[in-house]
Amino acid sequence: MINLELIKEIAIQSPSKIVLVVLDGLGGLPNPETGKTELEIANTPNLDQLAANGICGLVDMVSPGITPGSAPGHLALFGYDPFHFIVGRGVLEAVGIDFDLQPGDIAARGNFCTVDDAGLVTDRRAGRISTEQCTELCQLLDGLEIDKVKLFVCPAREHRFVVIFRGDNLAADASDSDPQQIGVAPKVVTALTPQANNMAGIANQFIAKAKVVLTDHYPANMVLLRGFSQRHQLPTMGEVYRLKPAAIASYPIYRGLAKLVGMEALETGTSIEDELATLKSNYAKYDFFFLHIKGTDSAGEDGDFNRKVAIIEQVDRALPQLLSIEPDVIIITGDHSTPALLKIHSWHPVPILLYSKWCRPDRVSEFSESACVSGGLGRFPATQIMPLAMANALKLTKYGA
Amino acid sequence: MINLELIKEIAIQSPSKIVLVVLDGLGGLPNPETGKTELEIANTPNLDQLAANGICGLVDMVSPGITPGSAPGHLALFGYDPFHFIVGRGVLEAVGIDFDLQPGDIAARGNFCTVDDAGLVTDRRAGRISTEQCTELCQLLDGLEIDKVKLFVCPAREHRFVVIFRGDNLAADASDSDPQQIGVAPKVVTALTPQANNMAGIANQFIAKAKVVLTDHYPANMVLLRGFSQRHQLPTMGEVYRLKPAAIASYPIYRGLAKLVGMEALETGTSIEDELATLKSNYAKYDFFFLHIKGTDSAGEDGDFNRKVAIIEQVDRALPQLLSIEPDVIIITGDHSTPALLKIHSWHPVPILLYSKWCRPDRVSEFSESACVSGGLGRFPATQIMPLAMANALKLTKYGA
Repeated sequence: MINLELIKEIAIQSPSKIVLVVLDGLGGLPNPETGKTELEIANTPNLDQLAANGICGLVDMVSPGITPGSAPGHLALFGYDPFHFIVGRGVLEAVGIDFDLQPGDIAARGNFCTVDDAGLVTDRRAGRISTEQCTELCQLLDGLEIDKVKLFVCPAREHRFVVIFRGDNLAADASDSDPQQIGVAPKVVTALTPQANNMAGIANQFIAKAKVVLTDHYPANMVLLRGFSQRHQLPTMGEVYRLKPAAIASYPIYRGLAKLVGMEALETGTSIEDELATLKSNYAKYDFFFLHIKGTDSAGEDGDFNRKVAIIEQVDRALPQLLSIEPDVIIITGDHSTPALLKIHSWHPVPILLYSKWCRPDRVSEFSESACVSGGLGRFPATQIMPLAMANALKLTKYGA
Repeated sequence: MINLELIKEIAIQSPSKIVLVVLDGLGGLPNPETGKTELEIANTPNLDQLAANGICGLVDMVSPGITPGSAPGHLALFGYDPFHFIVGRGVLEAVGIDFDLQPGDIAARGNFCTVDDAGLVTDRRAGRISTEQCTELCQLLDGLEIDKVKLFVCPAREHRFVVIFRGDNLAADASDSDPQQIGVAPKVVTALTPQANNMAGIANQFIAKAKVVLTDHYPANMVLLRGFSQRHQLPTMGEVYRLKPAAIASYPIYRGLAKLVGMEALETGTSIEDELATLKSNYAKYDFFFLHIKGTDSAGEDGDFNRKVAIIEQVDRALPQLLSIEPDVIIITGDHSTPALLKIHSWHPVPILLYSKWCRPDRVSEFSESACVSGGLGRFPATQIMPLAMANALKLTKYGA
């Protein structure tokens, strides 16, 4: 497999611009009534025209059969081997809320949850309390110091928060307290290696204090922690590809993932139009844009086939605006499939469309799962997308003498 | 590449069931008269219908251009990298006859053969003597002890037997005595490393004694040994996939391979109907079934194009019985190609058909080498079959945060 070191050697700076459009959870499964997927049933004249002018294929995000989480899916899209670069859940959340993680910090993802009088979990999400409530509760817990370890408790969306542990003698190999089911008590955090003994002890002390503080705050009367992790330094896209990359995404987690690989996360709104406006107004300043559209995944997870179709059609209608600024390379794909029929991320390969002046078009004239099977890009791992994008932007010199 | 450790982390137990049907040597080459392969000329309405409802592709068992033996072919089908997990011929035969190999035992595959008065091999298989004769001859040789090493000589089918050497100071790095051709003398076993000096010496003493014992047993008047090897512990399919796997195969070697990865080898008969009856009567007890059909390979090796066609048609006629028990995932493929035109195993990729409720069907509506080229699974390595099977059975959780 081609690696980042090699790309670094052959990458060159140039004025050409790449736009990577990620429709989260794009891939689908056919509706039994029509035999067609969300993308196939959607009316997408602009995407189809771009497919006819471009080259298509199917992408395995991680490996055939493997369903990727958001982190491995996006890292692979950015060209980072998702088996080599592992991002823990805690780090992902911390980066997503823009917390400035220091070397040595341990982050854990937290949920406010509900426990009954016997201490058993009755709702892992405390009725999905509002972000405002979450913020207030985090203020009650923030700023503790336990055995010389400083704790930061920061709100994310709804019932979600992040705890950052800062101090000496901490390690991330600690088990979750979140039992991932209801009707049982939260688990005790245990050290998975001797190095994490201190970490586990402090986490358990924090949980005990949180229980006391939250006792009168039903339904948010307890916390669950998971994904203790430490930020590893990833090579940036600037270092690897010599790009000046920007992310246009409204959800914290995708902004966080983009920042992990050195992208600038631009301020933007939540609609496709907002994101395109952000792209246009920043177009001169960067040469790579990651444009993330969340709606397809949310609709898929809700099992709402028609809403996913509608969002794809919305993207199709907005496409001429993107084309009008004439990026040198346009890639349209997803970070995984989220078929409305399954209501979760799935392993199915994701359709991809690449357009550039130099792309060698294939015979595919319809952007769909079925048509992409016969595409000129074939079926290939997501980590090869960035080298293809770079090549089509004429940003890679030849390899070897 | 995805490895077994990773699968182990994300595999979950569930009631869904997987049936992997292996038509040994399935892939073929086109008959010059018709331009069609065995599978293409066969009348297979049921397989074609399943292909239309499922997803197809082509599998490279080991690597493009590489012709697999039975062991690498099957290990790859079970998800074990055939370059990493090496099974020697002797071990394969020993496991195939259900011999309980102990740590440190060295096994070698034996042939009874015919030598002339000058000691030159005239028939490497002693006219394919019957299994009964083989059993009698093995009794003459069994139970020897040479330099404190105990020997077990056990019959397999026809002219084939196994010798197991049990004692101290043995190593498997010894060369074959089988010259793999006629008109020459059996070779002297030599140590390939100094550690195998004792092993080679004892093997040569055994061969010398066997020659004396067999002198009046023409055509079986000599032995040839090959594939000195030692059993390595493989992770079981139970450990890796959390499956309860069963093998339905009548030939010892495939039963042995299945047992090496922890499958239970069920008692069954030799016909397809026998095997399906075994599947039905054991269906409740396991969640993974490897069903092996030998006839396609035997017909291919005999160069009998029409017989191979007939066996494929027999499988097609039996398919509705398999469908009637409604496995969650059905996979139909081979362990390698054995084109009747070549009369041996070959490197050609093998057609595969996967059917499940969640498979995302492609446009292939005919199970054949030519049609599978355009299948939605693409062309892929056999080690990815098990992750795909597991995913389609909803037995894998997502990878990464």
